[in-house]
Amino acid sequence: MSVNTFGREFRFTTWGESHGPALGATVDGVPPGVALEEGFIQTFLDRRRPGTSKHTTQRREPDRVRILSGVFEGRTTGTPIQLMIENTDQRSKDYGEIAQAFRPGHADITYHLKYGLRDPRGGGRSSARETAARVAAGGVAQAVLAHLVPGLRITGYMVQMGGMHLDRTAFDAAAIPDNPFFLPDATAVGAWADYLDGIRKAQDSVGAAIEVLIEGCPPGLGAPVYAKLDTDLAAAMMSINAVKGVEIGEGMGAAALTGTDNADEIRMGPDGPRFLSNHAGGILGGISTGQPILVRFAVKPTSSITTPRRTIDRQGREIELITKGRHDPCVGIRAVPVAEAMAACVVLDHLLMDRAQTGGTRGTIG
Amino acid sequence: MSVNTFGREFRFTTWGESHGPALGATVDGVPPGVALEEGFIQTFLDRRRPGTSKHTTQRREPDRVRILSGVFEGRTTGTPIQLMIENTDQRSKDYGEIAQAFRPGHADITYHLKYGLRDPRGGGRSSARETAARVAAGGVAQAVLAHLVPGLRITGYMVQMGGMHLDRTAFDAAAIPDNPFFLPDATAVGAWADYLDGIRKAQDSVGAAIEVLIEGCPPGLGAPVYAKLDTDLAAAMMSINAVKGVEIGEGMGAAALTGTDNADEIRMGPDGPRFLSNHAGGILGGISTGQPILVRFAVKPTSSITTPRRTIDRQGREIELITKGRHDPCVGIRAVPVAEAMAACVVLDHLLMDRAQTGGTRGTIG
Amino acid sequence: MSVNTFGREFRFTTWGESHGPALGATVDGVPPGVALEEGFIQTFLDRRRPGTSKHTTQRREPDRVRILSGVFEGRTTGTPIQLMIENTDQRSKDYGEIAQAFRPGHADITYHLKYGLRDPRGGGRSSARETAARVAAGGVAQAVLAHLVPGLRITGYMVQMGGMHLDRTAFDAAAIPDNPFFLPDATAVGAWADYLDGIRKAQDSVGAAIEVLIEGCPPGLGAPVYAKLDTDLAAAMMSINAVKGVEIGEGMGAAALTGTDNADEIRMGPDGPRFLSNHAGGILGGISTGQPILVRFAVKPTSSITTPRRTIDRQGREIELITKGRHDPCVGIRAVPVAEAMAACVVLDHLLMDRAQTGGTRGTIG
Amino acid sequence: MSVNTFGREFRFTTWGESHGPALGATVDGVPPGVALEEGFIQTFLDRRRPGTSKHTTQRREPDRVRILSGVFEGRTTGTPIQLMIENTDQRSKDYGEIAQAFRPGHADITYHLKYGLRDPRGGGRSSARETAARVAAGGVAQAVLAHLVPGLRITGYMVQMGGMHLDRTAFDAAAIPDNPFFLPDATAVGAWADYLDGIRKAQDSVGAAIEVLIEGCPPGLGAPVYAKLDTDLAAAMMSINAVKGVEIGEGMGAAALTGTDNADEIRMGPDGPRFLSNHAGGILGGISTGQPILVRFAVKPTSSITTPRRTIDRQGREIELITKGRHDPCVGIRAVPVAEAMAACVVLDHLLMDRAQTGGTRGTIG
Repeated sequence: MSVNTFGREFRFTTWGESHGPALGATVDGVPPGVALEEGFIQTFLDRRRPGTSKHTTQRREPDRVRILSGVFEGRTTGTPIQLMIENTDQRSKDYGEIAQAFRPGHADITYHLKYGLRDPRGGGRSSARETAARVAAGGVAQAVLAHLVPGLRITGYMVQMGGMHLDRTAFDAAAIPDNPFFLPDATAVGAWADYLDGIRKAQDSVGAAIEVLIEGCPPGLGAPVYAKLDTDLAAAMMSINAVKGVEIGEGMGAAALTGTDNADEIRMGPDGPRFLSNHAGGILGGISTGQPILVRFAVKPTSSITTPRRTIDRQGREIELITKGRHDPCVGIRAVPVAEAMAACVVLDHLLMDRAQTGGTRGTIG
Repeated sequence: MSVNTFGREFRFTTWGESHGPALGATVDGVPPGVALEEGFIQTFLDRRRPGTSKHTTQRREPDRVRILSGVFEGRTTGTPIQLMIENTDQRSKDYGEIAQAFRPGHADITYHLKYGLRDPRGGGRSSARETAARVAAGGVAQAVLAHLVPGLRITGYMVQMGGMHLDRTAFDAAAIPDNPFFLPDATAVGAWADYLDGIRKAQDSVGAAIEVLIEGCPPGLGAPVYAKLDTDLAAAMMSINAVKGVEIGEGMGAAALTGTDNADEIRMGPDGPRFLSNHAGGILGGISTGQPILVRFAVKPTSSITTPRRTIDRQGREIELITKGRHDPCVGIRAVPVAEAMAACVVLDHLLMDRAQTGGTRGTIG
Repeated sequence: MSVNTFGREFRFTTWGESHGPALGATVDGVPPGVALEEGFIQTFLDRRRPGTSKHTTQRREPDRVRILSGVFEGRTTGTPIQLMIENTDQRSKDYGEIAQAFRPGHADITYHLKYGLRDPRGGGRSSARETAARVAAGGVAQAVLAHLVPGLRITGYMVQMGGMHLDRTAFDAAAIPDNPFFLPDATAVGAWADYLDGIRKAQDSVGAAIEVLIEGCPPGLGAPVYAKLDTDLAAAMMSINAVKGVEIGEGMGAAALTGTDNADEIRMGPDGPRFLSNHAGGILGGISTGQPILVRFAVKPTSSITTPRRTIDRQGREIELITKGRHDPCVGIRAVPVAEAMAACVVLDHLLMDRAQTGGTRGTIG
Repeated sequence: MSVNTFGREFRFTTWGESHGPALGATVDGVPPGVALEEGFIQTFLDRRRPGTSKHTTQRREPDRVRILSGVFEGRTTGTPIQLMIENTDQRSKDYGEIAQAFRPGHADITYHLKYGLRDPRGGGRSSARETAARVAAGGVAQAVLAHLVPGLRITGYMVQMGGMHLDRTAFDAAAIPDNPFFLPDATAVGAWADYLDGIRKAQDSVGAAIEVLIEGCPPGLGAPVYAKLDTDLAAAMMSINAVKGVEIGEGMGAAALTGTDNADEIRMGPDGPRFLSNHAGGILGGISTGQPILVRFAVKPTSSITTPRRTIDRQGREIELITKGRHDPCVGIRAVPVAEAMAACVVLDHLLMDRAQTGGTRGTIG
């Protein structure tokens, strides 16, 4: 079994290789009657697009999405939506050597072991280029969410890049769109840029940590016990290339807390329960509380670096390998819009799951 | 939609509430012809059983598992296996007050909001008691794995409990079964016990971090891109009650690394590729490398504590609540066998997924 | 992969063998807050129960269902419902010979070939006894349907038994519950009884055809193109033991019709579209029209007969076999409540599927 | 929930509308290393192509398939295969009136009721044009089957068209590819052609019955009890546009048989069990016996006819409608390659399901 589909009610299947003719997403389960245009989806793709700053790969892809089905006269029809992005800038010649050798820290060797063959051009299916299709699918999810839950807002941003950490006291959401790092602190952008320049000049790469904040999510989403909302968010983030850890609310730090500290006490607010803190990250028992949902994840450094590393080739010869080509010094940067897309898909999926089972009604308090 | 089923080929559905007549797991997809006895599954349940030390809840359940189907003359038949555990020590009277109030940090309020009603006895479905059924299902997975992959070994252990941390230089796997903390360091058990006694006497609880090490897992398991092996392990762990973070290999620490550091260089060994390090935690591109797989996760402190906390009740009245009853001061302890069970189920599931698609063949090197 | 689960939103997994300690169904996805009691489910099981007339197997099972989870104080909680029926009258000694031989026309040989072993007691998992669990699950579906779609009514009845055919001009739904054949014609019951007596005395068995009529089903149910409502009804019926054909509306007879004849013309009625005929059987393009849905299926004769038949045994010896034991001369009779149960599950499943995608809204006419 | 995906291990998702820019199939779960070329898939599409005889719609589509992913240097890589067919001959102007009116017997009205809007151009998603994508997916399945089960052969043919019936004594498989009716009797082709000409000149259409014969299918395929091989074949055929009935082996005729007649007696042959008859149609207990598998289904007459029929429009006005445009007088003809494609997908899916659970091993006899 191979699983290139994500979601249960709102499902998308991504397809395509880094250097094939095209890639895309087949989206099923979309509610009918939702306004949807290519231009709207394009705005999300543009945020992820490579080649937009010197901090991302210099591969220049317009990443122009086309809707091939499922939309009629600007509205979704309830039938599958095919989103296609043609590849235009595939320089396969850059990848000659790695067709025979296995980059350390890369999926080359595991794809070879599992499948017996692989498409080595640009990493084939294991390339982070696959995430363009996710972002397109996420654009559909965002359109549906805007229709069904107008107040919902999903915001991703970087909180760490190697040795650089976000100063949370300086947090400014307004700064996020205006810098190449999705950094919520305009005053730190220069230092981050210098740091990453140094990494790139050292022929190296660096890891990152990203947070996704989901505000305005209604309570009651989550389908215990094996499709808890946090379970699905964790799977969503861990499925992104190079992700090695996922946290909800306090995350790994919860191991150090006591029950007294960790309890999110509750009072009554004008519109219902009001929590005095949010250690839980907006999810209790796998179900949303109505508080902001906080997800954090870590991305390892790009494994394709130009510093020579010891490895082997298909003939089992021990070699040293330099990975040429155009690679992001910090692949975590472009993970930000990808994570937002995945979060949008998870929330919409659970919204639809919930209305299947409960009809969307809620228990009353008071 | 509600999802009480885990897995794709090897699937189990758990059912049952904390204080209902019974709970269990319906296991489907089990290969035929595998030796399986109740006694074998019981060994796993006994490791998780409450009431075995003063560090776990004093609820005394024999947790005796019965196989009701799918096994004939000591061998699996390929049909569904029903595993049932009868509840015998349900003191529902302990739970009178919480039927009307919402414990802070607990699923009480989200179950109420989602479903409009809930079984309050012992936490109902949201109780960690549900994990007994997982451990039973994991026993079946372990039996099948022993049949198909004789060398595979799954070991869980605690690495942190609140302020106490495992000294990794003292790591001794042999110590794990001999102490109530699944701690791989016999010399530290006394200090951990004193620490937890202090927590309990302070009417409090504490979080924990657990590691699961999977040794002998063949390469090639994982079904990219949305059922990567690490994706499914993350979902498995995050689905366990109170888990707030999951890490593979370097985990959240990967954010701080450079590509040079993080590359797991490769040489040839006598039996194939030999990795010089294992930052990746045994998984690349979502597919197992053949190295040990390392998963780490954090469990928040038990939210049911006897220190009063502010909350509300169903009528919306603001109250202070003390959670009486029998609760683990560190619910993370019993998460250890649960996590091993989930890991066994994930690995077996992927083994079967892989043989569906590839027939279990492997690409050759050399 | 083994698939003992039916449905997508409303899912049930059946488990258990004919002569094991118990059998049952694990039901997931049930909406919360629905009134449900064992007694209600029992009424459906009682209609299917063996030993109630001389026309069905003389195995006497009380088939008493127990609800082990998912219901609290008489209402569903939204968590899995475990329905268990204990086996009490298993005379395994009756089945000695068939452990070694393969009954012609029976699943003995295919289970052996597939799994390498089988539980031969009473046919094990391939026994029609499995359908008791379906009927229990169907009882849950009926309770939920009564809650969500009060006017919906599902009625199964026999239209053929070997050489006997229902005289449709004499159709009288009121007669169905009052005879052992679920026959909607009280005047024909005597003749059918005599006919079946003759079959049984001849050591033989006979096939049957059954119809299920679903009245009051709202329009708009069906999830094209691979979960059309008729597709799922066909799968539901074909999954019942011994079923060899399924028809919707005109069924196989549609091959003989012209488009002029087959068109179900439409006029406006007081409440919306009014169809002048129903060749389609209530489903167009895989979606319900609001007309009555008509499903018909054929059940082959019981393969376990006491007339000697040529076959082989596990050692490959050619033998003649008489199947002793207690077998229905017309297994089609008891298929009637089973088919009703499956129909209820399919309709409910699609109702929930529909409200996930469309929220249950409908396009307007006029 | 909307379900445009078929299969469990070998899964395809079709997308696209009749008159959109393109349609296609996203195929997942394909084993790696299988030789696959566009030209091979094209041979299957060419058999289904409209406009190839006067007996099918005069819409002229080249139906040229492109492989956009999942194949590298002529071999499958184990990643998703995207198959795209561009639409080139969409005369949307033909469909002006039906955008406002509902053709009797057509999905127009149910799509409108369910979704609130629909793409009326050429029937949109409900058009039989969707089956082109299935045939493409079936081509991939045929390539994999040729690789894994070399002797397997799937043959579809017509057995009835309105009043015309195949004379089974004249059955000649060699004739099938050489006439526009997939008729296994060259001597009857002229009469069938004259008959259909008469239907078309009468502004009418006619139903059909088709058989699919699967030879060389290994025993042991089928995943009881809800994914029996016959269950999945029934669902596959019923999901094809306009299908109203499905039969396995004796089909609906089984209702008339006795157990004595229906028993497929068994002797030993040189290679294992030898059945003396095949009433079962090659499947017992939902699992293949190794005998030829026989599936039969009926297709209703095309509902789009040029004889006026009474119906209503979106405003609820009662009108008479003539469906202009290019429509098949017998849509059953083109269902033949579609049914072969679906059969290929089901068999492959079960082959992969079986090797997941049993590893493909078989129980021994003798």
